[in-house]
Amino acid sequence: MDKLRIGIVGLGWVSQVFHIPQLRRFEDAEIVAVCDKDKSRARIIAEQCGVSHFYTDYQQMLAAEDLDAVDVCTSTDAHLPITLAALEAGKDVFVEKPIARRYSEAAQMAQAAEQHKRKLMVGMNNRFRPDTMILKSFIEKGEIGKIFYIKAGWLKKLSSDNKWITHKDKSGGGVFLDLGIVLLDLVLWMLGFPPVLRVNAKMYLHKTKSVEDSCIVFLEVKYGITLVVETSWSFHSEQDFFYCDFFGSEGSAMINPLRINKELHGSLVNVIPAKVETGYNLLMKSYENELKHFVGAARGLHPVISTGVEAMQRMKVVDAIYNSAVKGREILIK
Amino acid sequence: MDKLRIGIVGLGWVSQVFHIPQLRRFEDAEIVAVCDKDKSRARIIAEQCGVSHFYTDYQQMLAAEDLDAVDVCTSTDAHLPITLAALEAGKDVFVEKPIARRYSEAAQMAQAAEQHKRKLMVGMNNRFRPDTMILKSFIEKGEIGKIFYIKAGWLKKLSSDNKWITHKDKSGGGVFLDLGIVLLDLVLWMLGFPPVLRVNAKMYLHKTKSVEDSCIVFLEVKYGITLVVETSWSFHSEQDFFYCDFFGSEGSAMINPLRINKELHGSLVNVIPAKVETGYNLLMKSYENELKHFVGAARGLHPVISTGVEAMQRMKVVDAIYNSAVKGREILIK
Amino acid sequence: MDKLRIGIVGLGWVSQVFHIPQLRRFEDAEIVAVCDKDKSRARIIAEQCGVSHFYTDYQQMLAAEDLDAVDVCTSTDAHLPITLAALEAGKDVFVEKPIARRYSEAAQMAQAAEQHKRKLMVGMNNRFRPDTMILKSFIEKGEIGKIFYIKAGWLKKLSSDNKWITHKDKSGGGVFLDLGIVLLDLVLWMLGFPPVLRVNAKMYLHKTKSVEDSCIVFLEVKYGITLVVETSWSFHSEQDFFYCDFFGSEGSAMINPLRINKELHGSLVNVIPAKVETGYNLLMKSYENELKHFVGAARGLHPVISTGVEAMQRMKVVDAIYNSAVKGREILIK
Amino acid sequence: MDKLRIGIVGLGWVSQVFHIPQLRRFEDAEIVAVCDKDKSRARIIAEQCGVSHFYTDYQQMLAAEDLDAVDVCTSTDAHLPITLAALEAGKDVFVEKPIARRYSEAAQMAQAAEQHKRKLMVGMNNRFRPDTMILKSFIEKGEIGKIFYIKAGWLKKLSSDNKWITHKDKSGGGVFLDLGIVLLDLVLWMLGFPPVLRVNAKMYLHKTKSVEDSCIVFLEVKYGITLVVETSWSFHSEQDFFYCDFFGSEGSAMINPLRINKELHGSLVNVIPAKVETGYNLLMKSYENELKHFVGAARGLHPVISTGVEAMQRMKVVDAIYNSAVKGREILIK
Amino acid sequence: MDKLRIGIVGLGWVSQVFHIPQLRRFEDAEIVAVCDKDKSRARIIAEQCGVSHFYTDYQQMLAAEDLDAVDVCTSTDAHLPITLAALEAGKDVFVEKPIARRYSEAAQMAQAAEQHKRKLMVGMNNRFRPDTMILKSFIEKGEIGKIFYIKAGWLKKLSSDNKWITHKDKSGGGVFLDLGIVLLDLVLWMLGFPPVLRVNAKMYLHKTKSVEDSCIVFLEVKYGITLVVETSWSFHSEQDFFYCDFFGSEGSAMINPLRINKELHGSLVNVIPAKVETGYNLLMKSYENELKHFVGAARGLHPVISTGVEAMQRMKVVDAIYNSAVKGREILIK
Amino acid sequence: MDKLRIGIVGLGWVSQVFHIPQLRRFEDAEIVAVCDKDKSRARIIAEQCGVSHFYTDYQQMLAAEDLDAVDVCTSTDAHLPITLAALEAGKDVFVEKPIARRYSEAAQMAQAAEQHKRKLMVGMNNRFRPDTMILKSFIEKGEIGKIFYIKAGWLKKLSSDNKWITHKDKSGGGVFLDLGIVLLDLVLWMLGFPPVLRVNAKMYLHKTKSVEDSCIVFLEVKYGITLVVETSWSFHSEQDFFYCDFFGSEGSAMINPLRINKELHGSLVNVIPAKVETGYNLLMKSYENELKHFVGAARGLHPVISTGVEAMQRMKVVDAIYNSAVKGREILIK
Repeated sequence: MDKLRIGIVGLGWVSQVFHIPQLRRFEDAEIVAVCDKDKSRARIIAEQCGVSHFYTDYQQMLAAEDLDAVDVCTSTDAHLPITLAALEAGKDVFVEKPIARRYSEAAQMAQAAEQHKRKLMVGMNNRFRPDTMILKSFIEKGEIGKIFYIKAGWLKKLSSDNKWITHKDKSGGGVFLDLGIVLLDLVLWMLGFPPVLRVNAKMYLHKTKSVEDSCIVFLEVKYGITLVVETSWSFHSEQDFFYCDFFGSEGSAMINPLRINKELHGSLVNVIPAKVETGYNLLMKSYENELKHFVGAARGLHPVISTGVEAMQRMKVVDAIYNSAVKGREILIK
Repeated sequence: MDKLRIGIVGLGWVSQVFHIPQLRRFEDAEIVAVCDKDKSRARIIAEQCGVSHFYTDYQQMLAAEDLDAVDVCTSTDAHLPITLAALEAGKDVFVEKPIARRYSEAAQMAQAAEQHKRKLMVGMNNRFRPDTMILKSFIEKGEIGKIFYIKAGWLKKLSSDNKWITHKDKSGGGVFLDLGIVLLDLVLWMLGFPPVLRVNAKMYLHKTKSVEDSCIVFLEVKYGITLVVETSWSFHSEQDFFYCDFFGSEGSAMINPLRINKELHGSLVNVIPAKVETGYNLLMKSYENELKHFVGAARGLHPVISTGVEAMQRMKVVDAIYNSAVKGREILIK
Repeated sequence: MDKLRIGIVGLGWVSQVFHIPQLRRFEDAEIVAVCDKDKSRARIIAEQCGVSHFYTDYQQMLAAEDLDAVDVCTSTDAHLPITLAALEAGKDVFVEKPIARRYSEAAQMAQAAEQHKRKLMVGMNNRFRPDTMILKSFIEKGEIGKIFYIKAGWLKKLSSDNKWITHKDKSGGGVFLDLGIVLLDLVLWMLGFPPVLRVNAKMYLHKTKSVEDSCIVFLEVKYGITLVVETSWSFHSEQDFFYCDFFGSEGSAMINPLRINKELHGSLVNVIPAKVETGYNLLMKSYENELKHFVGAARGLHPVISTGVEAMQRMKVVDAIYNSAVKGREILIK
Repeated sequence: MDKLRIGIVGLGWVSQVFHIPQLRRFEDAEIVAVCDKDKSRARIIAEQCGVSHFYTDYQQMLAAEDLDAVDVCTSTDAHLPITLAALEAGKDVFVEKPIARRYSEAAQMAQAAEQHKRKLMVGMNNRFRPDTMILKSFIEKGEIGKIFYIKAGWLKKLSSDNKWITHKDKSGGGVFLDLGIVLLDLVLWMLGFPPVLRVNAKMYLHKTKSVEDSCIVFLEVKYGITLVVETSWSFHSEQDFFYCDFFGSEGSAMINPLRINKELHGSLVNVIPAKVETGYNLLMKSYENELKHFVGAARGLHPVISTGVEAMQRMKVVDAIYNSAVKGREILIK
Repeated sequence: MDKLRIGIVGLGWVSQVFHIPQLRRFEDAEIVAVCDKDKSRARIIAEQCGVSHFYTDYQQMLAAEDLDAVDVCTSTDAHLPITLAALEAGKDVFVEKPIARRYSEAAQMAQAAEQHKRKLMVGMNNRFRPDTMILKSFIEKGEIGKIFYIKAGWLKKLSSDNKWITHKDKSGGGVFLDLGIVLLDLVLWMLGFPPVLRVNAKMYLHKTKSVEDSCIVFLEVKYGITLVVETSWSFHSEQDFFYCDFFGSEGSAMINPLRINKELHGSLVNVIPAKVETGYNLLMKSYENELKHFVGAARGLHPVISTGVEAMQRMKVVDAIYNSAVKGREILIK
Repeated sequence: MDKLRIGIVGLGWVSQVFHIPQLRRFEDAEIVAVCDKDKSRARIIAEQCGVSHFYTDYQQMLAAEDLDAVDVCTSTDAHLPITLAALEAGKDVFVEKPIARRYSEAAQMAQAAEQHKRKLMVGMNNRFRPDTMILKSFIEKGEIGKIFYIKAGWLKKLSSDNKWITHKDKSGGGVFLDLGIVLLDLVLWMLGFPPVLRVNAKMYLHKTKSVEDSCIVFLEVKYGITLVVETSWSFHSEQDFFYCDFFGSEGSAMINPLRINKELHGSLVNVIPAKVETGYNLLMKSYENELKHFVGAARGLHPVISTGVEAMQRMKVVDAIYNSAVKGREILIK
C-alpha cells in the first residue's frame, strides 16, 4: 500500500510542534496539503513541508486534493463542521482533544463516522506515554489490587498564544475542557471505562472572563471508586504539575515519575522503573505513538482506539461537570 | 497565684509522650493526681510524676483531690461523662481531640461549660505549631489574597497501640474523627471559621471492621471556597504525609515545609522561612504551646481558644460527613 | 521457666558495646557473672551490671556460679579451652566469631557440644540484620531467579583497640578471619549452604607483620556459582565499605542499601524497601536479634542456628583460603 | 522606518558569539558591512552574514557604505579612533566594554557624541540580564531597605584566544578593566549612580607580565556605602564565579542565583524567583536585550542608556583604582 | 604532679557551655572555685561542679583558695583588673577573647605576666580546630605556594543573652572585637604573624546604639598580602557564615568545609580531607584542645601559645581599625 | 606531505558513530574509499563522505585505490584476511578491537606487519580518554605508591544491532572478547605491561547460545599483583557500569569519575580533578585522540602505540582465560 495521504487543518502550536514534525518522519504517511485561515501561515508551513498547494478553506482542500485522512487541529468550535465534511468526503479523521465543545456535538461526530464507515480518532496522547502504558500493564496484572481512589491534577500556566481557548464560544469551556478532560480520559482508560455515577464541581474565574481558569471536581465512579481532579491555569505554583495517583487495596501507583508502593513478601517496597523517558522526550514519544497508531488504523492494520464513541461517554461527564458548577450542587449521571 | 493544680485522666500514649513531659516542665502548673482504669499503669506513672495518690476512678479523684483543672486524655467515649463531672465539680477542663463521638455529645459538654462558667478547651495542637502560626499571620496580612481552594491530607499508618480507636462505640468513627478533624479545624481556624455549606464524603474499610480507614471529603465553605480533605490509615505510601495547601487570588501557601508562592513586583517568587522547626521538635513545640495556653487561660491570664462552642460547629460538619458517606450523596448543612 | 543465667567471659569491645547492653534489656535472661583476665576491668563491669561476683579465671567462675549458659567474647585463641570447659560443665555456649583459629579447633568444639548434648551457637550477627533477612526471603521466593555470581567486600580501618587481632597466635589469621569469614557465612547462608569446591586467594601485609591486612579470594561454589570476596584493613578508601551483591538469572540484589533490580511484566524495575533500619540501628538490631535467638534456643523454645557443625564447614574453606595464599595456587576442597 | 543599517568593526569572539547571531535575528536591523584587520576572517564572516562587501580598513567602510550605526568590537586601544571617526561621519555608535583604556579617552568619545549629536552606547550587558533587572526593581521598591554594603567578584580563567587583553598598550589594564569594570557598573547602576569618594586597590601579576591578573578593591561610595570588588584571571578555584551581594537595612539580596533574605511580618524569609534564566541562556538574553535597546535608541524609540557620559564617571574611578595600586595608598576622588 | 587547681571567674555562656564541661572531663585539672557577681548563679554552678565554696568577689577567691590558675570568662572590661590581680597573686591566667578593650589594656596585662613570670594565654579556640590545624600544615608544606590574598568573614545573629557585648564601656567595641578579632588572629597565625601595614575600615550601627554591628575591613599585610574581613551581627542571611579563604601562587584553600584547589602534575584538582569534624563537634574539639594546651602549659609541659605579647600586636591593629572607621580614612601602622 | 589517504572496511556502528565523523574533521587525513559487504550501506555512506567510489570487496578496493592506510572495522573474523591483504599491499593498518579471535591469528597479523615493515595499530580507545591519561600520569608519579590489587568491570546491555558478536565463529568469544579485553588492556597499559602469571575464569550463557554473556576472571600478575575483572551483557543492573579501581601501598585511585584517595601530610584526602570530560564527550574525545595518533604515526611523526606485538601478549592471556573457563581450573601462563 502507498503512503497514507494526509491533509492538516489548523496550523497552530500543536500542529507545528508535534503533528507536523512527527508525521514528516513517518515512512508510511505523507502530508499532502495544509490548511489554515491565516493565509501567510499556511504558505510558510506549506513551504516547510514541501507541499505545493495550501488552503485557507478546508472545503476547497477536501474537493481539490486526493486525501486518505484529515488531521483536525483547529480551535474546538471548528471540530464539528470540519469533521463532518471530511467524513462525508470519505476521509478518516484524527481530531485533537477535546473532540468538541459539548456532548451533543460529539454525538453528531461519532454518528457521522459510523454512518460513513470511516475511522474517527480523538487525540489523547497521554494514553500513549511510555510510563502510562507501563502503569496500565502493572495495574491490569493486579500489582496494586482493586483500585478505590484516584486523585489527578494538572496545573499549568496558560499559554498566551492560544487565545481562542479562553473564549467560550470557540472552546466550549475553560481549563477543564483543556486539561481536565485529559486526566478524566487517562483515569477512565486506566480503569477500563467504568461509568461515572455522580459529579460535584467548583469553578473559578481569576484571570479569565468567559471560562473557568480553575476547577475542582469530585466524582463517584461505578464500583465505589472516588476520583478527585484539580486543574488550573492560574495557580501560583513553583512549576507546572501533572500528577495522577492511584490507590488500590494492595498498593498505590503514580506517574511523574512512575512508581509503585506495595507489599512484597511482607515488606513494604517501592517499585521504580529503571529507565523511562521523562519531560520533553516523553511528550514527543507520546505524540509519535499516537499518530503512528492513527496512521496504522487508517491503513487497516489494527482497530482504532480513542474513538468518537468513547469520547461521547466522556463528554456526557463533562456536560455534567459544567452543570454541577453552574447549579452549585451534585449532578447524577444516568 | 499558686501553681495550677491539674489531674490527668487517661494515661495512654498522648499523656505519656506529650502531656506529662510538658506539664512537668512548666513552672506555673503541677500534676497533683493521675487516673487510669489500668491500676498498674496509674501507679507507675504516679511514681514517675512524684504524685502520692493515683486513682482508677475519676469520680474518686475529683472528690478526694483539690484540683484546679482536669486534663482528659481517655478514649473518646469517656470524654463526655468525665468532662461533665469535672465541670460540675468546678474544674476547668482540657479535653483531647476529638471533643466527642458526635455533635450531640459536644453540645452537652459546651453547654455544661457555659452553665458552670468554667473553661473548656479542646486539644487542637496543630494551631499551635510555629509554622501554622506564621502561615496564619501571612494569610491574615493578605500575602496570598482571597483564598478560594484548600486541599489537605493526612496519611498515617495506624498505630497498633491505640486499639480502641477502631471500635466505633469507643471512638465514634474512624480515620476522619482521628485525623480528618484536625485538618478540618486547621483550615477553618486559618479562614476565621466560615460556615460549611455542603459536604460529600466517601469512606472505605480495608483493614478495619467497624470504622472507615480511608476517607475522601469534598466540602463547599461559605464565600465559594472549596475544600478537599483526604485521610487514611491504610494507604500504601512511601511515608506518612501531612499537608495543607491554600490557594488564593494572589498566591498559594503550604506547610510541611512552609512556603508561599506569589507575585512580587511582577515576578513569581517563592517565599520560604529561613528557619522553622520541623518534625519531632515542631510537634513537641505545638503541645508545649497548646498546654501553656490552657494553663494561662485557666489562670485567668487570657481568654481560652479552641473552645467547646467552636467544637460544636466542627462536630456538626463531622456528623454531615458521616451522613454523606452512609447515604452516598451530598449533604447540605443548615 | 526462670531467667536464663548467663556468665560472660571476655569483656572487651564487643561485650561492652553489644552483648552486655542487649542482654541487660532482655526480660528472659540475666547476667549473673563476668570474667576477664584484667581484674579492674572485670570489677568495673561487674558494678555496672549489678553483679556481686567477678572473676579473672573462667574455671573458677564455672565452678562457683550456677550458670545456664556462657557467652565467650575473648580473643580467638581462648575460644577452644573456654568452650570445652563450659560444655563439659553442662552449659550452653555462645561464642563470638570466628569460632576458632582453624578447622581442627572448630571440629573439637562442635564434637564436644554433641557429646555433652549442649547448644553451641557461633556469633554471625549479619544473618540477623533486618535487611539481610528480607533479602533472604526475597531470594527464596525466587525474586531474582537462580543465583550464579556473588561479589562481597568489607573494607574497614583496623581499630587500634583490638591489638590481639594482628597476632597470629591469638587470632589465627588476619583480615579474612576477622571480616571475610562474616561475608563467607552470609553468602553461604543466603544460598542454603552449598559446598565450596575450590578457592584461590591472595593476601597482603602492608601495615601488619604476622597476619594479612588485605585479602582477595575467588571461590567456586557447587552448581557453578562464582564468589569473589575482598577484605582489607588498610585500603585507602573514602569510607568503610560493606557490600554483598547477588546476581541471578532473573535479577540482581544488593544490601547497603537493600535493593533489587529485575524485570516486571517486561519493564526493568528497581524494588526498594520503603523503610529498613540502617547504620548503627541496624547493627544494634542484628545483635539484639542474634542474642535473643540464643537465649530462646537455650531456653528450649526453638532449635539453634549458626551451630558449631555449620562453623566446621566454614572453617574448612578458611583453611583452604590460607593454604591457597601460602602455596600461590588454587586449592580444591574435597 | 527601514531597518537600521549596521556596520561591525572587529570580528573576534564577542562579535561572533553574541553580536552577529543576535543582530541577524532582529527584524528591525541589518548587518550591511563587516570590517576586520584580518582579511580572511572578514571574508568568511561576510559570507556567513550574506554581506557582499567586507573591509580591512574602517575608514573605507565608513566612506563606502550607507550606514546608520557602527558596532565597535575591536581591542580597546582602537575604540577611540574608530568611535571618533564614526561619530564624525554621523553614525550612532555601540562600543563594547570597556569604553576606553583610560578616562581621558572616554572623555573625548563622550564629547564627540555630544558635539555630533549622535547616540553613543557602551556595552554593559549585565544590566540587561533578566535577574539583574528583577533585582533592580526589588531594590527600588525598597524590599531590602537602605543599602550600605556590597561585595562583588568575578573569578574567571583567562581565555587564551584574547591575547591582546594582556598587553597594556592595547587593553589599558588587566583584569579590572576586563571584569571589574562590569561589576563596578552593575553596582553603581543598581544604586542610581552615587559618586565614589575614595578607593584602595591591590593588584597582582602571577601569570601575566604587563597587566594585573588579580585585583582587590575597597571603595567608599557616597552615603557611607562600602563596596569591595575582587577579580581574577588566575585564582585556583573550582569553577568560574560571578557574584554580587547587596546588604541593606531591611534585608540582603544576591544574584547567581537571585534571592532575597529579609523579614516578613516578623519571620525571616528567603524570597526566590520561581523561574529565572541561568547560565548560557541568561547570557544570551542579556546581549539580546542590550542590542535591542541600542537598535531601538538609534531608531529614536527611546533615549539611550549606558551612555558615554556615564562611562566617563566610571572611568574616573578606574583611573583612581590603578593609581591606588601603583601608589600603594588610598586615593580620594574629587 | 597533682591536678592543676583552677578558679573560674565569670560564669556566663562560654563558661557553662564550653569551659566547665571540658575542664571537668580532664584528668589533670580540677575546678576548685567559681566566682560570679550573680550570687545565685555562682551557687548553682558550684553545686554542679561539686565545689564547696563559691564567690561573688574574685579578690576574696584569690585570697581564700589555693589556686594554680585562674580562668577569666567575664565581660571584657573586667579582664584587666582580674588578670592583674591573679598574676600578682602568682597564678597562671587563661583569659577569653578579646584580651581587652584596647591595646593599652592588653599591654598592661602582657607586661604584668612578664613581670610576675606567669603564663598568660588568650582564648583563640579557632587555632585549635582540627580543620585549621590541618590547613596550617598544608600551607606550611607549601601546598598552595605563596599566599597573597585572604578573605574572611563571620556573619552571626547576635545572641540576646550577652547584653554587655553591645555596651562600649564593657566590651570596648562591637562586632569586630567580638568576631573580627578571631578572624584576624586566625589569618595572622596561619601566615606566621607578619606585621599589618595599613587598615581601612567601615562600621555600621543598625540594631545597636553604642558599638558597630557590621564592619568591613581592608588591610595590607607585609609582603604585599591583602586581607579583607567582613563581620556582622545584623546581616539578613540565610544562616550564620564563617569563612576564611586563602589564595596563593599555586592554589587556594578554604575551611568550612576544608578544601584545597591546586594543580597536580598539570591537572587542576580539588584536595578534600576524607573526614574532618564539623559543626558542634568541631567547636567542642577546639575548646578541648585549647584548654588542654593551657593546662599542659601551666603544668610546665610545653610553652604557652596565644600569649599576651601576641595579643598586644593584634590589639594594635584593632585600635587602628576603630581609628580608621572614626576618621573615615586609611590608617598606617608603624 | 599530503593528507593521509584512508580506506575504511566495515561500515557498521563503530565506523558510523566514531571513525567516520572523526576522520572527516581531521585536516591531515582523507577518507578516499569505503567498503562494506552490504552494497546499499556502502553507497549511502560513500555519498555522505563525498567519496565517488565504494566497494563490496576489499580486494578490489586495495587494487583500485591509491591508499596510504586501511581502517578495519568489520566483524572480528574478517580482521585477519583484510589486515594481511592490506599489509601485503603496503598499507598501514588500524584494526578495531579485539585484534582477532585468538592468539594464533594475532600472531600472524603482527608478524606480517613486521615482515612488510608497515604500522599495525589496534583500537584501544580507553587508553586515549582524558581521565585515564591523567590517572596514568598520577600513577607514574607515584601518587598511590606500589599497586598490588586492581578490580575492573564493565556491565553493559548487549546492543541488538551487533548480532555477529554473539556468533562464536565470527567473534571468537563473547563478552570477555568484547568488553573484558578492553579492561585487561587498560590495566596492563597502566601498569607498564607486566606479564600475567595465572588466570582463573568462570563464564555463563544466559541470553546467548554460543558465547558467554557473563564472565568473572581472577588473575595473578607479576610482582604479586591481583586483578579481578567482571564483565557482562546480561546483568540486571540499574545502569551500565564501567569501573577500574587501583589499590596501592600509598593510596587508591579510580575512574568514572576519576579520583584518588591518599594520605597527605598525615591527613587522609580525596584528590578530585576539577574538570574532566565525562560521558559522551569523553568517549568521543578518546576516539579523536586515538585516530589522531594513528594518522600521526602513519605520517611518520611518532612511533605507533597499541601495536600488534602488544596485542599478541594480550591475546595469550585471553586464550588462557577461555581455556580456564572450559577446563574449570586455574591455567598458568608461561
